[in-house]
Amino acid sequence: MIKLLVAGTVAYDSIETPFGKAENVLGGSALHFTNAASFFADVGIVAAVGKDFKLSDIEFLKDRNVDMSGLAIDEGKTFRWEGKYGYDLNQAITLKTELNVIETYKPHVPEGFRNADFLFLANIDPELQAHVIDQVRSPTAIVLDTMNFWIEHKYDQLMDVIRRVHMLVINEAELREIAKEHNLVKGARKIIDQGPSCVVVKRGEYGVFMMNRDEVFLAPAFPLEDIFDPTGAGDTFAGGFMGYLANIGDASSETIKQAIVMGTVMASFNVEDFSINRIKRLAYNEIRERYTAFKGCMNFGECRI
Amino acid sequence: MIKLLVAGTVAYDSIETPFGKAENVLGGSALHFTNAASFFADVGIVAAVGKDFKLSDIEFLKDRNVDMSGLAIDEGKTFRWEGKYGYDLNQAITLKTELNVIETYKPHVPEGFRNADFLFLANIDPELQAHVIDQVRSPTAIVLDTMNFWIEHKYDQLMDVIRRVHMLVINEAELREIAKEHNLVKGARKIIDQGPSCVVVKRGEYGVFMMNRDEVFLAPAFPLEDIFDPTGAGDTFAGGFMGYLANIGDASSETIKQAIVMGTVMASFNVEDFSINRIKRLAYNEIRERYTAFKGCMNFGECRI
Repeated sequence: MIKLLVAGTVAYDSIETPFGKAENVLGGSALHFTNAASFFADVGIVAAVGKDFKLSDIEFLKDRNVDMSGLAIDEGKTFRWEGKYGYDLNQAITLKTELNVIETYKPHVPEGFRNADFLFLANIDPELQAHVIDQVRSPTAIVLDTMNFWIEHKYDQLMDVIRRVHMLVINEAELREIAKEHNLVKGARKIIDQGPSCVVVKRGEYGVFMMNRDEVFLAPAFPLEDIFDPTGAGDTFAGGFMGYLANIGDASSETIKQAIVMGTVMASFNVEDFSINRIKRLAYNEIRERYTAFKGCMNFGECRI
Repeated sequence: MIKLLVAGTVAYDSIETPFGKAENVLGGSALHFTNAASFFADVGIVAAVGKDFKLSDIEFLKDRNVDMSGLAIDEGKTFRWEGKYGYDLNQAITLKTELNVIETYKPHVPEGFRNADFLFLANIDPELQAHVIDQVRSPTAIVLDTMNFWIEHKYDQLMDVIRRVHMLVINEAELREIAKEHNLVKGARKIIDQGPSCVVVKRGEYGVFMMNRDEVFLAPAFPLEDIFDPTGAGDTFAGGFMGYLANIGDASSETIKQAIVMGTVMASFNVEDFSINRIKRLAYNEIRERYTAFKGCMNFGECRI
């Protein structure tokens, strides 16, 4: 039984960073998410690729119990994204987007996935996100990501789907744009007033801000010396985050906080190499080791006051 | 006996933020520092004001055991700074600087201050910072702050004084500029290779990054809904930080981490009102309460992996 379901994109990316270049490499929100989440839970993936997609390149995910029966192989070419980064790796510059098969895709959730307890709606058209929600039964947690394009072009449709989810996992600029509020605490509260019980804000190298009805939680990012490619870091975070939730099996405030830490650990690996490469070759033991190191970076005992 | 000594500026500021305006209000690095530090330790202040300065306005600091015998009252007018902020309160725009008495001031450390265990060199000309170090005996910790102006105009003199201090407390942009390195971990290491054993990097609303020879420590900032005026937040942080060190009486890695948390707590109060007002009227009990709330925002127990 699939516990965790993701609907999003599988793509070919071409990326340039100050540290190198990678062309036509594996990418997409659902793939980065699944790559990370599959360390913690069985994942079902709902996405579309084109006839040009080399399925053998993601065969390794089956060894991690990923169910690909929701991956549609449509006529046409796979979604392609081309982008670059300057030294400020927090901000991607999109050079080219080719929607290809994505343009007409309507996500279909296979029957075997419909009882999933945890659903991640990666960044796609909010109308398609709503269509995915329509197909699932009663998940413990539906979590939504989005991007500036949908906020600017489909604000009402986005707000409609936000009212139907339990949590948002978005970045700082997106929170400000959705809530029309600069201050994070006020912005998160405005979203919570609309229905979701929890807002998780990704702040890149500055970590994560979480707010629910009762609490605020703040986690830093893992300090890295070498960041090769931030592409997919947000989806990798979401994958670690939701994989952890699905593994524990609840979405309590305590579990959410721990899931944020685990998402941060996974994201820290993702940026160490291009595409999905670092997490493809990751060993579970490395996750444990980095978690221990990360926890050490946050520990200060108790102030003597 | 004065344990903690600060050399810096006392100023009149005129500040505009999206939330209001304040004209000719108390400011300056040494004053913000002392206002915070005096909650934790006896502070001696080394700075200069002009004949126009109303000493009665800072009389309240004497009740907190601040020793003003190092405050020179020189011919001329007090240092004045005029600045404003947009909604991104991380970045001040300087509208006007009138050096006045600061222009010719040479800091003199009174005999009674020379055995201080902790010395904070607030942002002044690095040659004057060196001159202050020349006058003290053997402090446990000399901590230095600076700004882009000195990095750009007196780099060699600044590097000379950096080699003589134990710690830097600077912001992110300053670290990058001093170390000529974008990555924080690499930049901090470059500075540590020059002599200081510890680098504390202030990241505004994103918290603090600390690195010493053995460890990295990361603290978030306290989440606030209303930030009226960030002026002096960095010096207030330094005041809480060094006040805590002086109170505990050592500069071990453990104490430094706790001091960072306490500095962050103090800075969170400073931004809640213009000038030194919030911390002027602060009660020690409020510090304890906010510390407890802040610690709660960082706690996630232990991940179940």
